[in-house]
Amino acid sequence: MWAIGGDLGGTNVKLALVDGAGQVREAVRFPTPARGRLEPVLEELDRRVTPLRDRAEAAGVPLAGIGFGVAGLTDGEVVVVAPNMQGWDRVPFRAMLADRWGLPVVIENDANAAAWGEYWTGAGQGCHSVVVLTLGTGIGGGIVLEGKLWRGVTGMGAELGHLMVEPEGEACGCGCRGCLEAHASGLAIVRDARRGIAAGQAGAALAAFRARPETLTPRDVSEAATAGDPLAREVLARAGRYLGMALADLVNVLNPEVIVLAGGVAGAGELLLGPARQELYHRTYAILADHTRIALSKLGTEAGVVGAAGLAIARFGGEGAKV
Amino acid sequence: MWAIGGDLGGTNVKLALVDGAGQVREAVRFPTPARGRLEPVLEELDRRVTPLRDRAEAAGVPLAGIGFGVAGLTDGEVVVVAPNMQGWDRVPFRAMLADRWGLPVVIENDANAAAWGEYWTGAGQGCHSVVVLTLGTGIGGGIVLEGKLWRGVTGMGAELGHLMVEPEGEACGCGCRGCLEAHASGLAIVRDARRGIAAGQAGAALAAFRARPETLTPRDVSEAATAGDPLAREVLARAGRYLGMALADLVNVLNPEVIVLAGGVAGAGELLLGPARQELYHRTYAILADHTRIALSKLGTEAGVVGAAGLAIARFGGEGAKV
Repeated sequence: MWAIGGDLGGTNVKLALVDGAGQVREAVRFPTPARGRLEPVLEELDRRVTPLRDRAEAAGVPLAGIGFGVAGLTDGEVVVVAPNMQGWDRVPFRAMLADRWGLPVVIENDANAAAWGEYWTGAGQGCHSVVVLTLGTGIGGGIVLEGKLWRGVTGMGAELGHLMVEPEGEACGCGCRGCLEAHASGLAIVRDARRGIAAGQAGAALAAFRARPETLTPRDVSEAATAGDPLAREVLARAGRYLGMALADLVNVLNPEVIVLAGGVAGAGELLLGPARQELYHRTYAILADHTRIALSKLGTEAGVVGAAGLAIARFGGEGAKV
Repeated sequence: MWAIGGDLGGTNVKLALVDGAGQVREAVRFPTPARGRLEPVLEELDRRVTPLRDRAEAAGVPLAGIGFGVAGLTDGEVVVVAPNMQGWDRVPFRAMLADRWGLPVVIENDANAAAWGEYWTGAGQGCHSVVVLTLGTGIGGGIVLEGKLWRGVTGMGAELGHLMVEPEGEACGCGCRGCLEAHASGLAIVRDARRGIAAGQAGAALAAFRARPETLTPRDVSEAATAGDPLAREVLARAGRYLGMALADLVNVLNPEVIVLAGGVAGAGELLLGPARQELYHRTYAILADHTRIALSKLGTEAGVVGAAGLAIARFGGEGAKV
């Protein structure tokens, strides 16, 4: 039994045909049409999904259904809000897709879908409890406890990017201050590096951006840090310490078997993760922290589509799962 | 089927004979012997448990077993550490009690036992997901998710008193800084009130303690606040704001159906809870926070013994539960 997985964000859409073992058989990626407006998105999805369905049919494998991770708050029926796409206000996205395509559809928050992917075939495979933090432009999170996606009483948890790390800290996109996302996301890293550059603190690598700070990316900061730039190192270390505070909170609440770090920012490696681990141990009992493994994503940017497809297979694949 | 529940802390020991509906049929409370040293504690427990067993026998009701909440880290077999009792270092407490008494025994962290009590017959009865914060001298926490006590991969979570609320905050008993317990516990409230008194900020009610600040209790602060003392009000409001930050973290991670506030400090009421709720809403999406009820404990100081007995009934009562 195969499934189609989708990952709908404000910038890109990914689709993949995924087999029952979680392997991607075919994948497609394209820019989100029309800044995410609903009708153009639906029309483009129609065009893009058809060849994947044809491919499954040609292979003679039945499709369990379609799973979609969406960058927004959703209760599994309705996308309540999707801040990076225009005009998404209480859109009954699941039924819309199911009606158009005549297939069972499951929709899920994109970070939850990615968490399910890492649990299903990634860095948290088969683990008792898995928390996934996706450190990208923003920070998303998902939780799988004893083989079940934890969504809270509303079906809309877990908002791990909004764990508090600094009461009077930086402004966050959510309207509050001091969220993890405001201190350890790609946006936060770039913001801090630009400030340092403006203040004349850049080393050799970041100094190159003095004339064009608006082009700076998290990857540039990471590369500058690897090259020894002291400002870049301090920026990553600071983000790492804040990340460690959130890791400590997660260990103190859930003490999960593994916390998987995904997303481009996690690629900064030890310059970020070293300070994060140190802060984690500073703020927890070692006997708890010792048993929570901090791992890097295995599925990378595919976690979302693989997880979304996996949710469709788990729910509709006839194996009795009830995710 | 009845059970005996125990609650072993550094100051007091409570025991209760509890029926299958969670009603306390008989209760006893006594000071923890010999500052919690193991042998005197065991001997006193022997003496105190016997009459409760006799009482159950006289009533003709079989005992499912004995449940014990212990103020320390435990994996259900061994008490790994109990900071407020002398000499508890990896004590195999469960087997010790079972051997002495010839009855099935379950041991659990005291805050976890209290959480189970509130879920079983208290303010979280029958709820999808329950978090209990016990705001006493320190702060303990327990989590019940879909009818199961959540203990993490080690069996020793949840350490909710050590959620971080202020990165460079007050010193906590755990050796770190800025934990919830260091900012919103009874100890923290008394510390802040004493500082204010020493700085000459006390109103009429707290000024009475200027000559004897060492006698000040959290209840005194609460009463002074109710009487209008501005320092007492500010101390409670500050603790409430920090409590609200932790509530927000819990909503952002778990989005539980209910968070139960227990312990003497919760008795301060709206002067503490008003600022806590405001901070909670400030730091969460309303659509999540609206669905997490903040409730006061129904079982009060009995939550621990009732919950411990309930765990014994659930595990040994032959109704197939496997808590």
